[in-house]
Amino acid sequence: MTGAEEVLAARIARLNTAYAHAIDDDRLEDWPGFFTDDGLYRIVTRENREAGLPLAIVHCDGAAMMRDRVRAMRTANIFEPHTYCHIVGAVEPVAREDGIHTARTNFVVVRTMHSGAMSVFACGRYLDRIVETDGTLKFAERVVVCDSRTVDTLLVVPL
Amino acid sequence: MTGAEEVLAARIARLNTAYAHAIDDDRLEDWPGFFTDDGLYRIVTRENREAGLPLAIVHCDGAAMMRDRVRAMRTANIFEPHTYCHIVGAVEPVAREDGIHTARTNFVVVRTMHSGAMSVFACGRYLDRIVETDGTLKFAERVVVCDSRTVDTLLVVPL
Amino acid sequence: MTGAEEVLAARIARLNTAYAHAIDDDRLEDWPGFFTDDGLYRIVTRENREAGLPLAIVHCDGAAMMRDRVRAMRTANIFEPHTYCHIVGAVEPVAREDGIHTARTNFVVVRTMHSGAMSVFACGRYLDRIVETDGTLKFAERVVVCDSRTVDTLLVVPL
Repeated sequence: MTGAEEVLAARIARLNTAYAHAIDDDRLEDWPGFFTDDGLYRIVTRENREAGLPLAIVHCDGAAMMRDRVRAMRTANIFEPHTYCHIVGAVEPVAREDGIHTARTNFVVVRTMHSGAMSVFACGRYLDRIVETDGTLKFAERVVVCDSRTVDTLLVVPL
Repeated sequence: MTGAEEVLAARIARLNTAYAHAIDDDRLEDWPGFFTDDGLYRIVTRENREAGLPLAIVHCDGAAMMRDRVRAMRTANIFEPHTYCHIVGAVEPVAREDGIHTARTNFVVVRTMHSGAMSVFACGRYLDRIVETDGTLKFAERVVVCDSRTVDTLLVVPL
Repeated sequence: MTGAEEVLAARIARLNTAYAHAIDDDRLEDWPGFFTDDGLYRIVTRENREAGLPLAIVHCDGAAMMRDRVRAMRTANIFEPHTYCHIVGAVEPVAREDGIHTARTNFVVVRTMHSGAMSVFACGRYLDRIVETDGTLKFAERVVVCDSRTVDTLLVVPL
């Protein structure tokens, strides 16, 4: 590992941390900004992915669609208040090609309901393609692969 | 991010790790040493904090009060043996002003009861103000913001 | 902390991450390769360890025994499909002596059953002795100390 690779891994980790904290802090309007304008965001189950099924639970093609999604969540959804706490593992940089960094990271999200009950809401891995734009790292693609096949109907925030 | 910022973030992460391991190893007597002499330690709920309520579940003003707390725990408390496992996320350095580093970090604590049952005991974030004293980083303030409003009555160890 | 120590800690963290992802990806055949040929792998409970009892839930003495174990798992075991997600905390380098690095790291494993149910499957700490062989870090010894005394009978994959 060269010094440059270490710095890159640290920068990707920082991107992951800022992303997680934005969601946990309910700063959802900041969420699309972690992606390139034509960035892709998908939530899929591990089962479907391994079976080669193209089904996605959530599919956003471009930051504009993500902003729409956040706006819809703010205006349309009525649900019991609950909060999320992301714990994001260490980044495993997989490859770099043509300026695109491929990385894989485990995550666990603990959800706390208004009653105070806490439970594991989601876990799995992020499969990311990351590019540098004007000195800033952004997701060209973030695929969230959930280990669980049953995804909570309250899945309204990004993972 | 400059090299100096990276080194600082790594040092804060190291402080967080040592703090978590001290508690998980039941080396509670080491806990006050992570704070400055006049350091502040508070556990609050997210709900109260967002409502602007000053209520704290635990409030220790200064390392001496923390030492008293540990002593009381060692002598007075009788409870079922259980162990804690902290998983601490990556640090997000927020700001630096007048030699005080402000940082935010997510955490999850899994508690294991004597029966072997494991559950998420607490999760949320650390909001820290950190200073350097004689080459060592210490907490001038650690505010533990718990996502859950119901805090277990067995909340006897520091988070 | 010198720059060299930081680089070492980053390299150990990378080893931990690759190890966790190999298991979570069901690439179990890669697992023995994280150890030296005469490496030791043990899973013990915190309770037994603190009582000084030598009992281990799993004991593999050498990479060959680990390969046997993986082969047995692939051919003999019949169990409900489930997946694992390791979240590994930050490394605390403890000591370095005669080229052996001693490190301690917390971990939590979330298991997802085929039904979709998620739960904390194991948590505790890794106590590692790590050596460098031909420029690669490997475990000369990995002791997995589980906080829980009740270990699931489905404990078939490495932790």
